[in-house]
Amino acid sequence: MFDILFCNADIITMCDENPVIRGGYVGINGKHITYVGNERPEGKAKRCIDCCHKVLMPGLVNTHTHTAMSLLRGYADDYALNEWLFDKVFPVEARLTEQAIEAGVTLGFAEMLRTGTTSISDMYYFQPKAAQIALDCGIRASFCNGIIAFDADAFNPESDRGVTETKILAERFHNAGDGRIKADASIHAEYTSSPKIWHFVNDMADKYGLNMQIHLSETKNEHENCIEKYGKTPTAILAENGVFERKAIAAHCVWLSEDDMDILASKGVSCAHNPISNLKLASGIANVRKMLDHGMNVALGTDGCCSNNTHDLFEEIRFASLLAKGTSYDPTALCAYDTLKLATVNGALAQGRENEIGRIKCGLEADIILLDLSSPITRPYYDPISAVVYSTSGRDVYMTMIQGKILYENGEYKTIDIEKAIANADSLATKITNGE
Amino acid sequence: MFDILFCNADIITMCDENPVIRGGYVGINGKHITYVGNERPEGKAKRCIDCCHKVLMPGLVNTHTHTAMSLLRGYADDYALNEWLFDKVFPVEARLTEQAIEAGVTLGFAEMLRTGTTSISDMYYFQPKAAQIALDCGIRASFCNGIIAFDADAFNPESDRGVTETKILAERFHNAGDGRIKADASIHAEYTSSPKIWHFVNDMADKYGLNMQIHLSETKNEHENCIEKYGKTPTAILAENGVFERKAIAAHCVWLSEDDMDILASKGVSCAHNPISNLKLASGIANVRKMLDHGMNVALGTDGCCSNNTHDLFEEIRFASLLAKGTSYDPTALCAYDTLKLATVNGALAQGRENEIGRIKCGLEADIILLDLSSPITRPYYDPISAVVYSTSGRDVYMTMIQGKILYENGEYKTIDIEKAIANADSLATKITNGE
Repeated sequence: MFDILFCNADIITMCDENPVIRGGYVGINGKHITYVGNERPEGKAKRCIDCCHKVLMPGLVNTHTHTAMSLLRGYADDYALNEWLFDKVFPVEARLTEQAIEAGVTLGFAEMLRTGTTSISDMYYFQPKAAQIALDCGIRASFCNGIIAFDADAFNPESDRGVTETKILAERFHNAGDGRIKADASIHAEYTSSPKIWHFVNDMADKYGLNMQIHLSETKNEHENCIEKYGKTPTAILAENGVFERKAIAAHCVWLSEDDMDILASKGVSCAHNPISNLKLASGIANVRKMLDHGMNVALGTDGCCSNNTHDLFEEIRFASLLAKGTSYDPTALCAYDTLKLATVNGALAQGRENEIGRIKCGLEADIILLDLSSPITRPYYDPISAVVYSTSGRDVYMTMIQGKILYENGEYKTIDIEKAIANADSLATKITNGE
Repeated sequence: MFDILFCNADIITMCDENPVIRGGYVGINGKHITYVGNERPEGKAKRCIDCCHKVLMPGLVNTHTHTAMSLLRGYADDYALNEWLFDKVFPVEARLTEQAIEAGVTLGFAEMLRTGTTSISDMYYFQPKAAQIALDCGIRASFCNGIIAFDADAFNPESDRGVTETKILAERFHNAGDGRIKADASIHAEYTSSPKIWHFVNDMADKYGLNMQIHLSETKNEHENCIEKYGKTPTAILAENGVFERKAIAAHCVWLSEDDMDILASKGVSCAHNPISNLKLASGIANVRKMLDHGMNVALGTDGCCSNNTHDLFEEIRFASLLAKGTSYDPTALCAYDTLKLATVNGALAQGRENEIGRIKCGLEADIILLDLSSPITRPYYDPISAVVYSTSGRDVYMTMIQGKILYENGEYKTIDIEKAIANADSLATKITNGE
């Protein structure tokens, strides 16, 4: 007896040996995938879901975001970086209350579930609050508070907010929800801290057994200033200080040298590639093909909604593939399947969840999405992988399941009061941007 | 008495003096816009449409497409250009029948209406058939058959298909549908013909009073081969041969020199910028900012669905803006409003329809779309122009109106049997790609 049986689905398994099954079946028991195959399995199901004209695939993994920034979607577009940061973003962030964070995070999670994202790596603050909301709404998430300490002498771990939140995350939320929620350690970035801080965060990560999240070589300035300061790239100096001695996600990686790529590959550090944010803030275009060729694991992220302006990972998938082709003058530079890996298998690996999620395979947890490809925008339909990469949008997501639970289906959110979430977000957005 | 009155809409007028009206009203009589304003006008309306949480804006203009290629959406992805063209596209195109064209064009028009495109410039063959379908389904379109003649000596205007179709378009369809359908003349490209042909097409354009469509400097090879052959760029040699002595759309313009930009600006030639196709086929990235700075009119196109893979112009809008920022390292390089101009006002100008469409203004024809911004993907909502450029998708289109007629509304197609259209497209796609 299956809890749920998906029938007659075009399945993108993301298993290299058999990436696509046409008209196949996927059975779910509890939180696990217990059957994948061409033939209808024996045994009944409590619920059968007919998947005619639908593609079934692993939920997408967003390895770099600041979910609460949903509240700032469209608030500060078309500004130069310093104006954007100092005149627009920082003043509003200074006014963020726990109530605003709750509104922004709830809206962001609703958007993610709506557009097929099932697992995220999130760096922001008020993170215990965000973790509680994730626990309640069913999304899979790894939270951190990126520690910033411009003045190492003034850094006091007893009162530092990043440290305090990291401890709460580690002690109360790490592996909550049957492993669904995780705490990560985080150095915000090389340029916002210094070696003393890095060692402190390393120690905290080791004490609690946490992975690391960090911003790395996002802008040319940041990269070159580091070389001027330390005589080394951000990657080299952080590696030298032991930051990459545990699983880590390095967000952006736009300005890496080839030596940097070798270091990150050897340390097993994953890049969270954020193509849209990097274009919108004019940081540049990360060289995904080269990172992959150097053996790095590359995954995708949306970054915050103030520099994107959505959490729709299908957009990132399209940008990642097309930018790789267009900037290399090679239309084969990043094929559809390899691009889809960034958002699934590679994302799972980046989060240290490769034995939980990322593929449609027996024994893995059931983080699954269904895409409706019946509209004139996605027909005809030759190959599900091509369709998903080159013509699908997050708006085509019909159903989103995490740990075997359906959280979104055909317009209905099962764990979020969507009307209230939108009304709250609208109202809090007005408040914080008007300085009320 | 209005035929239709849109009430309580956030209106993007695209009129520079007053680009946004919040909570305004737009009245329609027959095919024209007869009222635009903040206040509810006097007089009744046969139908009032409440536009709460909706943005009303001009329908989008797609200045370069090959609509029938919808049938090949996703058929040939991730191939090198020559393999793509010679092994995949050409063999299938050789098998296209009028029935297949009908299926592809109908599907393409359905997709365009669904995603908010109201006016197109289309270059392909079987064009009288396409023009008839456009006439029937209500879309606004300028059709041409791009003349190809590798061997000028063998060119026989009496039997040449491009010439024959152009004549039929000009004689039977030019200005049909109360000006909605137009015939254009077309030289496919510099590299697929020669001066004798160009002069022949020029004469045909003059005889019938037609505008011109041409592919221009799409690939580096094509651009450089021309310089080798003629000692001049494609722009220069075509200009010297009088091709730009009438209104013209030059598709792609990826490899223009700054002198080329000056020539095209002085001749009033519009660029149809196809950012997605140019990335996907690895042709490169056209410099929109520089073209605008040189005084050129730049509009947007999707190109055919075999190199895109959708007709969703909101995607092109996003790519155009973000690529301009990311490649120039300047986040202000192409702001939201200027980007939206490419897809509306500039598109109308490119087609020679600037006194018909492109803005929400009294006296213009009513080519109008409504976008539903009530989903968590597009909330909160600070500025309608930012929202449309950075977070909207063609899937958010709620209603599409052309010449005052509603052709799509909330899932319903008024002039296309959508189930039949999709079934036909699926079936013909299978036939032509299997060589049946």
